[in-house]
Amino acid sequence: MVLHGPNLNRLGQREPSVYGSASLQSLDAMMVEIADELGADVECHQSNHEGALIDWLHQADETCHGVVINPAAYTHTSIALRDAITAISVPCVEVHLSNVHAREGFRHRSRTAGVCIGQIAGFGFSSYVLGLRALIDYLTGAER
Amino acid sequence: MVLHGPNLNRLGQREPSVYGSASLQSLDAMMVEIADELGADVECHQSNHEGALIDWLHQADETCHGVVINPAAYTHTSIALRDAITAISVPCVEVHLSNVHAREGFRHRSRTAGVCIGQIAGFGFSSYVLGLRALIDYLTGAER
Amino acid sequence: MVLHGPNLNRLGQREPSVYGSASLQSLDAMMVEIADELGADVECHQSNHEGALIDWLHQADETCHGVVINPAAYTHTSIALRDAITAISVPCVEVHLSNVHAREGFRHRSRTAGVCIGQIAGFGFSSYVLGLRALIDYLTGAER
Amino acid sequence: MVLHGPNLNRLGQREPSVYGSASLQSLDAMMVEIADELGADVECHQSNHEGALIDWLHQADETCHGVVINPAAYTHTSIALRDAITAISVPCVEVHLSNVHAREGFRHRSRTAGVCIGQIAGFGFSSYVLGLRALIDYLTGAER
Amino acid sequence: MVLHGPNLNRLGQREPSVYGSASLQSLDAMMVEIADELGADVECHQSNHEGALIDWLHQADETCHGVVINPAAYTHTSIALRDAITAISVPCVEVHLSNVHAREGFRHRSRTAGVCIGQIAGFGFSSYVLGLRALIDYLTGAER
Amino acid sequence: MVLHGPNLNRLGQREPSVYGSASLQSLDAMMVEIADELGADVECHQSNHEGALIDWLHQADETCHGVVINPAAYTHTSIALRDAITAISVPCVEVHLSNVHAREGFRHRSRTAGVCIGQIAGFGFSSYVLGLRALIDYLTGAER
Amino acid sequence: MVLHGPNLNRLGQREPSVYGSASLQSLDAMMVEIADELGADVECHQSNHEGALIDWLHQADETCHGVVINPAAYTHTSIALRDAITAISVPCVEVHLSNVHAREGFRHRSRTAGVCIGQIAGFGFSSYVLGLRALIDYLTGAER
Amino acid sequence: MVLHGPNLNRLGQREPSVYGSASLQSLDAMMVEIADELGADVECHQSNHEGALIDWLHQADETCHGVVINPAAYTHTSIALRDAITAISVPCVEVHLSNVHAREGFRHRSRTAGVCIGQIAGFGFSSYVLGLRALIDYLTGAER
Amino acid sequence: MVLHGPNLNRLGQREPSVYGSASLQSLDAMMVEIADELGADVECHQSNHEGALIDWLHQADETCHGVVINPAAYTHTSIALRDAITAISVPCVEVHLSNVHAREGFRHRSRTAGVCIGQIAGFGFSSYVLGLRALIDYLTGAER
Amino acid sequence: MVLHGPNLNRLGQREPSVYGSASLQSLDAMMVEIADELGADVECHQSNHEGALIDWLHQADETCHGVVINPAAYTHTSIALRDAITAISVPCVEVHLSNVHAREGFRHRSRTAGVCIGQIAGFGFSSYVLGLRALIDYLTGAER
Amino acid sequence: MVLHGPNLNRLGQREPSVYGSASLQSLDAMMVEIADELGADVECHQSNHEGALIDWLHQADETCHGVVINPAAYTHTSIALRDAITAISVPCVEVHLSNVHAREGFRHRSRTAGVCIGQIAGFGFSSYVLGLRALIDYLTGAER
Amino acid sequence: MVLHGPNLNRLGQREPSVYGSASLQSLDAMMVEIADELGADVECHQSNHEGALIDWLHQADETCHGVVINPAAYTHTSIALRDAITAISVPCVEVHLSNVHAREGFRHRSRTAGVCIGQIAGFGFSSYVLGLRALIDYLTGAER
Repeated sequence: MVLHGPNLNRLGQREPSVYGSASLQSLDAMMVEIADELGADVECHQSNHEGALIDWLHQADETCHGVVINPAAYTHTSIALRDAITAISVPCVEVHLSNVHAREGFRHRSRTAGVCIGQIAGFGFSSYVLGLRALIDYLTGAER
Repeated sequence: MVLHGPNLNRLGQREPSVYGSASLQSLDAMMVEIADELGADVECHQSNHEGALIDWLHQADETCHGVVINPAAYTHTSIALRDAITAISVPCVEVHLSNVHAREGFRHRSRTAGVCIGQIAGFGFSSYVLGLRALIDYLTGAER
Repeated sequence: MVLHGPNLNRLGQREPSVYGSASLQSLDAMMVEIADELGADVECHQSNHEGALIDWLHQADETCHGVVINPAAYTHTSIALRDAITAISVPCVEVHLSNVHAREGFRHRSRTAGVCIGQIAGFGFSSYVLGLRALIDYLTGAER
Repeated sequence: MVLHGPNLNRLGQREPSVYGSASLQSLDAMMVEIADELGADVECHQSNHEGALIDWLHQADETCHGVVINPAAYTHTSIALRDAITAISVPCVEVHLSNVHAREGFRHRSRTAGVCIGQIAGFGFSSYVLGLRALIDYLTGAER
Repeated sequence: MVLHGPNLNRLGQREPSVYGSASLQSLDAMMVEIADELGADVECHQSNHEGALIDWLHQADETCHGVVINPAAYTHTSIALRDAITAISVPCVEVHLSNVHAREGFRHRSRTAGVCIGQIAGFGFSSYVLGLRALIDYLTGAER
Repeated sequence: MVLHGPNLNRLGQREPSVYGSASLQSLDAMMVEIADELGADVECHQSNHEGALIDWLHQADETCHGVVINPAAYTHTSIALRDAITAISVPCVEVHLSNVHAREGFRHRSRTAGVCIGQIAGFGFSSYVLGLRALIDYLTGAER
Repeated sequence: MVLHGPNLNRLGQREPSVYGSASLQSLDAMMVEIADELGADVECHQSNHEGALIDWLHQADETCHGVVINPAAYTHTSIALRDAITAISVPCVEVHLSNVHAREGFRHRSRTAGVCIGQIAGFGFSSYVLGLRALIDYLTGAER
Repeated sequence: MVLHGPNLNRLGQREPSVYGSASLQSLDAMMVEIADELGADVECHQSNHEGALIDWLHQADETCHGVVINPAAYTHTSIALRDAITAISVPCVEVHLSNVHAREGFRHRSRTAGVCIGQIAGFGFSSYVLGLRALIDYLTGAER
Repeated sequence: MVLHGPNLNRLGQREPSVYGSASLQSLDAMMVEIADELGADVECHQSNHEGALIDWLHQADETCHGVVINPAAYTHTSIALRDAITAISVPCVEVHLSNVHAREGFRHRSRTAGVCIGQIAGFGFSSYVLGLRALIDYLTGAER
Repeated sequence: MVLHGPNLNRLGQREPSVYGSASLQSLDAMMVEIADELGADVECHQSNHEGALIDWLHQADETCHGVVINPAAYTHTSIALRDAITAISVPCVEVHLSNVHAREGFRHRSRTAGVCIGQIAGFGFSSYVLGLRALIDYLTGAER
Repeated sequence: MVLHGPNLNRLGQREPSVYGSASLQSLDAMMVEIADELGADVECHQSNHEGALIDWLHQADETCHGVVINPAAYTHTSIALRDAITAISVPCVEVHLSNVHAREGFRHRSRTAGVCIGQIAGFGFSSYVLGLRALIDYLTGAER
Repeated sequence: MVLHGPNLNRLGQREPSVYGSASLQSLDAMMVEIADELGADVECHQSNHEGALIDWLHQADETCHGVVINPAAYTHTSIALRDAITAISVPCVEVHLSNVHAREGFRHRSRTAGVCIGQIAGFGFSSYVLGLRALIDYLTGAER
């Protein structure tokens, strides 16, 4: 499962200098394609609702082997998302399009990264692709 | 260039529960192999000396197209390394073997990530491989 | 009304070492039974959505005499829930399954306890039962 | 668009000493009337859901020239709302019924005001009217 | 054992608006009565001396099955009491007459709750009764 | 009374990108004109001296029905101005030309807004006009 | 009642450069003499035990019209003493021999002064005499 | 010299519940009278200007034996007043009408008390009288 | 004199994984024996009362040449103990059984070590022996 | 223009161990002489009034090419002075007689240095001379 | 192995009032002698380079049974040294000549003590001797 | 001696907008020339190694009369450099090319300036020249 947090539905329209000009649809299409290359299936969801993201995470525990999640703004404030990740047994990888460490101070702290297996930030769409690779490596035990 | 910071020469011997049991030599060998697969050349260096890491970064500006750097403990304290990264024009990717966001509070802050193009943490040896891929994507403009 | 916050629908599945292995359904059943013993009626609701919890609180003001609420992760971050509790006139009791004071620092602060009549934490399912008793004592003026 | 945040549906019932005794309906009616006087159209929405407010903001970008928003409790905690405001191109004015600067310390910080064109706080219903005037002045270039 | 901390001997005389007008004697009498109803024995002690409270806790380890303790002001400052609770093997429940979470900031932190099995605050005399019930539930394994 | 704090005499010359290019004289002229439209009289004063602003506030208590004040830099540091506002009985409205919430961190805190009836920031000259309207609404009891 | 806190029994022996070379006995004798001049009776007590000071305060509520207290080191840490002062109805004046505001940072905060009628610090033995005068002025309504 | 800081010219008019209803003139008259009783001369000055207070302090060094100063709001913010006190050789006593330790947190810190010989706070007009006595005791070496 | 602070009477019973399983009696016996070897006399005291420890320190000034003190929990909170150590003229050495620097954050700060001649922590019973040696070296001027 | 802040009129009289024993007059005379050597004209002003220093800065914008300013105590607190420096277009150099970095913590922060071209501290009268040289170098483009 | 950190090569020359007047050579000679008495061998190294100290620690893991280390200034800042100590399996004892707890605040925190077996500070050369004894006790299991 | 800290060897290549486009060689050449004009000799060293800078400082104590040092990034983190400066007896002047007070917050604090005779920042190459002049003035007692 690929989970996109709040405002990512605006991708391509929102601050293109920070987030690029391609849309969420093209990102999702790319993920499906690459997953296919890597022999995996992905489903993609986006919501602006913290609760809906939690619902999706719970569902992922039933239906998926892992989650690539970009919690966006909720990264920095949501203990509820953090608890949702610990409340499921499939592994999560946190990704960010932009380099959060190079932005405002309040974006340097992640409430969720500590309960994911790792975090990847700053590489645009590549962050998602690398996140998918990291997840598959982790699940297949092929650490490299 | 692949740069390893302090204590990484102890890899395999140092806290295997955190860092795994493979040695730095095997990591470097793996990087050379994978770089080869990806059509790139890498050279690998390790030092426990902050100043030596700065010297290597300066040299990288002359001889390399980019740097994958694991500043280890210096990540959290070294403004000098941060300045060294801004003082060169080739791009850097920061990587960590362990998930620094899941460890002691003083490891959550990175002095250096904000001046790299991005950060990858938590995937063991895969962090380095993903970092190399991210760097190549960045350099070739193939963001994905 | 008994209100359960985010991730409590995972009860029994989520971190059993912290939260026990019984399900939310069994907790709700127990509450109905005990309320009956104490001559009271309860209805139980759970949501992962902060907004839905606020909606329930507003509704409680119309239909109930009091609320036993476990805001879970929202305890520590939600000023909106705090405002919802002050925006209704029926009394609330805050309960927690685990001893929040013995966990991570960010769980020591409660945004909501200060506008409830009191807080009970650490006794597993008993926290809810004690909360119900406290509420009934408060409503009947039988402080003991 | 006029957007009301959490608990504002309780207006008139909630802490009348702080928020007055008139209802949200009368506030909305007043806004419609005054907008009409000023030659503008307004639509008014309220939600207790952070995600729904974000959805409305995104929609405003398609259908409105500007937004008068009272994010209520989310003012102080929501980076997601902040990002939503930067993710749209129509201007927003932040308003508050009460003087947030005279209340608890945690209400002194606004996550959202910095990405609005300005903030108006403390004048009851007048805060909204002044906010509408400020928005129209801004849009018509008649700064006064 | 029921342990009362500093200034609780002034109960009934001290700030009745916060602590009620009944005396410590009537509270102790009530506890004896209710313990009897629940098939338990209690002994009650009060001291203004931090050291004396520690002495009582040590003694409780020899003579009692558990402790209901209201450390009063020492709750917020005493690491020595905290250590005393960890230095004994019988379980403790922390109780407070008033809702400490609704009072001055320095009363929000408890040095001792984290080493008790849980905390109950805000229900007047009922806090003690609920504390006794919680303790008995805990000791009998009847978590409810 | 309209009171302008330090450096506002430089209006038009000082950082035009932040404060616009019109002069203080034109602002005062506009205020007189608009007050006239609204059936009110205004007198305008500016000083770079904290003490002089306090003197003016004291005088306003004798001669005016209210004050629109832009304390400029003193907003963030002056407890003396805060005390002056509480020491008079006529109401004050705090206004700012720029959106202080979007500037340096030390401009986010206002020492004075908490003792005014409200604050308006970010709308250029319109901030003053809106402040005057807010004050008149407040004085005439016509909250809208 | 005149109450001396911890280590004041060492007066004359303890750090003479800070506290002078006269003994506690001579201070008490002076207080008796001056009280006599002012038509009052005083009794003086010293203890190194926080609990004993609380006991004395409780007793003062029965037997005295007011208390001049130098809580010494407990000034800066004791919430229990603070509560004891609020738990009695006779007024207290806090005094210090040395100027606590000119010493280490941790001596700048007083836990107890806020619940006394006032604080006098820095005048050696005169601090006690002035404290007695302040108390008598307060009790006789002769504010001067 | 007796020096009154900002807003004290409003005495009797300003927040009578905090500062009493007598005027600054009556306070000054009382000080002259009591000084006379004690065989001393006083001159009294008030200013709302930090700079003017500094000027008076400098002058006091030429013409007086000591200063009783109530820096009012500048107590908490003015390093310049602090430096002025250290820049003169006559001793200063800091006084406050209200008990600053019982008010807002920002009134607990004094920038100036540490360079005075001591501080007296909370006794209304008596604070000044006690301050004068303390100063005379200090100057005559009659510490009592 | 050897002084043991609160809860050390529980040694052997209290958290053996942290403090070992030998009793306080055996520690004291060992100290007497070793002091004898080193040509010194020791007396040992333990109290859970902060005030009693202060009393013992004062007495040590009359009867001993130095003090080895383990203030236990009071290390981190007691300014009164700190003042007691500065109020006597014989030297003190602070010792701890466990390595306080490796435990909870609030155990990293020592209120008392700064006024002792030094601190020794982490070596179990050896901490006391080393402390005694350090004290004798200090007193005999044999620094080694 | 050379601007001296508060208490510098006391130079030679004020804490000679910190500031030396020469007077402000001799400093000004030296500056005139050296300016003459360097082919420049200077005028010197001192005030204890923050507002007066702002007035002088505004005037400097009309009549001078640059300013050497020692804001003294206002360095650490005055946002108004900071704004005055940004409100003028001639460059300022901040100077200090003493090494502010070696003094109390509150003297380490400068509100004004960040908007000057640079800061020089610690060299007594030489600080001013060096400041003048720095200013002339800057104005003549002779950076050396 | 005995390891000396930065500036210790200046011993005897550097601030004799803090560190004494004997040289590093005499300290090392003393250590060799005492080790011999205790039946142990020591080798001593000093470096001003953080990296060199790390190199020595790594080597100690191969060639020694334990380390007595005085990290000097790096104690307070070096996470790299901390990691080096955890990266080796032989035990370390941290020693300091001066009582770091009695010096500047930034010397109160040790980055390294928490991963050593313990810390000894304040006894001059004796700190090293005691450290050696502590290490030998630890290695021989003779805890006393 | 002129000492240059980390990354200054990149001068001219590193962020020319901040540091200018001239090289370290030209800076050193300029210093030699100006020293000659002023009748002094200088030797210049640069290192990226903290330890090497400490070594140079120690050597300067033997061979030079003073040091002009730009510790660059180590300014803000190095207690070891601070200790090295206090460990030598020749005076140091701290200089910076850029105005550190106008840059990131972490560059506002200097660990080293407090133990130098003073600091000069913001004037490009002129900072060094002014530093040399300041040092010579200091050494010749010609304060001006």
